[in-house]
Amino acid sequence: MVHSGRFTLSTQGNDHMLDITGMVEQVILDCGVVNGVATVFVVGSTAAITTIEYEPGLEQDMKAVLERLAPRDASYAHEARWHDDNGHSHIRASLLGPSLTVPIVGGRMTLGAWQQIVLIDFDTRPRTRTVHVQVIGE
Amino acid sequence: MVHSGRFTLSTQGNDHMLDITGMVEQVILDCGVVNGVATVFVVGSTAAITTIEYEPGLEQDMKAVLERLAPRDASYAHEARWHDDNGHSHIRASLLGPSLTVPIVGGRMTLGAWQQIVLIDFDTRPRTRTVHVQVIGE
Amino acid sequence: MVHSGRFTLSTQGNDHMLDITGMVEQVILDCGVVNGVATVFVVGSTAAITTIEYEPGLEQDMKAVLERLAPRDASYAHEARWHDDNGHSHIRASLLGPSLTVPIVGGRMTLGAWQQIVLIDFDTRPRTRTVHVQVIGE
Repeated sequence: MVHSGRFTLSTQGNDHMLDITGMVEQVILDCGVVNGVATVFVVGSTAAITTIEYEPGLEQDMKAVLERLAPRDASYAHEARWHDDNGHSHIRASLLGPSLTVPIVGGRMTLGAWQQIVLIDFDTRPRTRTVHVQVIGE
Repeated sequence: MVHSGRFTLSTQGNDHMLDITGMVEQVILDCGVVNGVATVFVVGSTAAITTIEYEPGLEQDMKAVLERLAPRDASYAHEARWHDDNGHSHIRASLLGPSLTVPIVGGRMTLGAWQQIVLIDFDTRPRTRTVHVQVIGE
Repeated sequence: MVHSGRFTLSTQGNDHMLDITGMVEQVILDCGVVNGVATVFVVGSTAAITTIEYEPGLEQDMKAVLERLAPRDASYAHEARWHDDNGHSHIRASLLGPSLTVPIVGGRMTLGAWQQIVLIDFDTRPRTRTVHVQVIGE
C-alpha cells in the first residue's frame, strides 16, 4: 500500500530546471499502484519541486522573475552570518517548496499534456540531488 | 480506501479566483471518509490551487501583487519562442503550485472559518478547468 | 493506517518563523508509522508552512524579500473593505501555502540535515496557531 521510490540526479545549480516526470512515472509503474497519490520530495533547503510547461523559454523566464524577487547580489543576513553566497537560493527554494503531491488515476498521474514535474536547483554550484517518491494507493 | 473525485468549472482567466471549497467537501461527503487526507490538483500549467480568505478585496490584491512580481507586459522568452501571450501565466502558476493536501478529521477538512480552497486561473482567456480530488483514508 | 496528531503554539505574528520539526517528529513517533507520509497543515489564512534552513539570518531575509513583494504599508483592497491592517499577511500566506507533505521512510522524515519544517505567522499580532499532522502509512 505504501511504496518508496528514490532517485538521484546531477544538477548545474544556478536555477537549473530538470524535467523529472519520467523518473516519477517509472516509480509508479514499478510499484503497480493504479489509484492513489504520489508525493515527490527533494531533500535539501536550496532546491524545489513544482510543475511547469518544460521548455527553455520558461526556464529562462523563471530565473528572471526570481532574480527580481530575491536577487543573487542583494544583501542577505544568512550570508553575513555564515560567510557563504546562497542566501537567495534558500529564499527561492522556500517560496516554491520542496514537495508536490499528484493524484494517480487509472495508473497514470493526472498531469496535463504540457504540465511536467520539475526540480529547480537554486544553489550556486553543481549538486547531486536526492528525490523521494512516496506512492500510496492500491 | 482511495476515492477519486473530479469536477470541471469554467473560468474567465486573467487571475480569476474561484472558491472550490464546497465542491471538494462534496467529494469527501460522497465517499464517506472520516479520517484521512484530500489532495486537490488542477490539471494544466497556467492555473494554481491555494487557500485564502475568499472575498473580492483579496482577489484584487493577489492580482496586484502578482502583476508586480511577473507583469503581464514584461518580456518573456516563452512568448518569443511560442508566439503567445501567457508567459506571466505560467510563472505565476508555477510559483503557487497546482496541488494542495488537506487533512480530514471527523469527516471534515481542517480549514479555518475564513480559509477557503481556491483555484486561480492565470491564463489570458476563459478556460474550462478540471480539478481532481483524491481522498485517502478510512 | 491514518493517525491524526495536532499541536498548538504561540507566535508573535509579524513574520515570526518557528521550527516545528520536533513536534511533527513526535507525532510520527507516537503513532509508530514506519513507511508513509506526513501532511502538516496550519489552520487559518494568515500563516504558512514550508521548509528552510532554520537560523536567524534566513528568518530576517525571508521577511525582507516578502516585504518587497507584498509591503506591509501598501494599499490593499482587503483593508479598505474590512478596515483591518493585514492585507499583506493574507497574500504572503497564500503564496507560500498552508500545507506540506513529507515522506516517512524507515520511521523518519526524509528531510535534509539543514532542512527544517517551519511555520511562519504573517498576521500583525500575536496568535495561537493550531497545526494538524495527518500521518498515513504502515
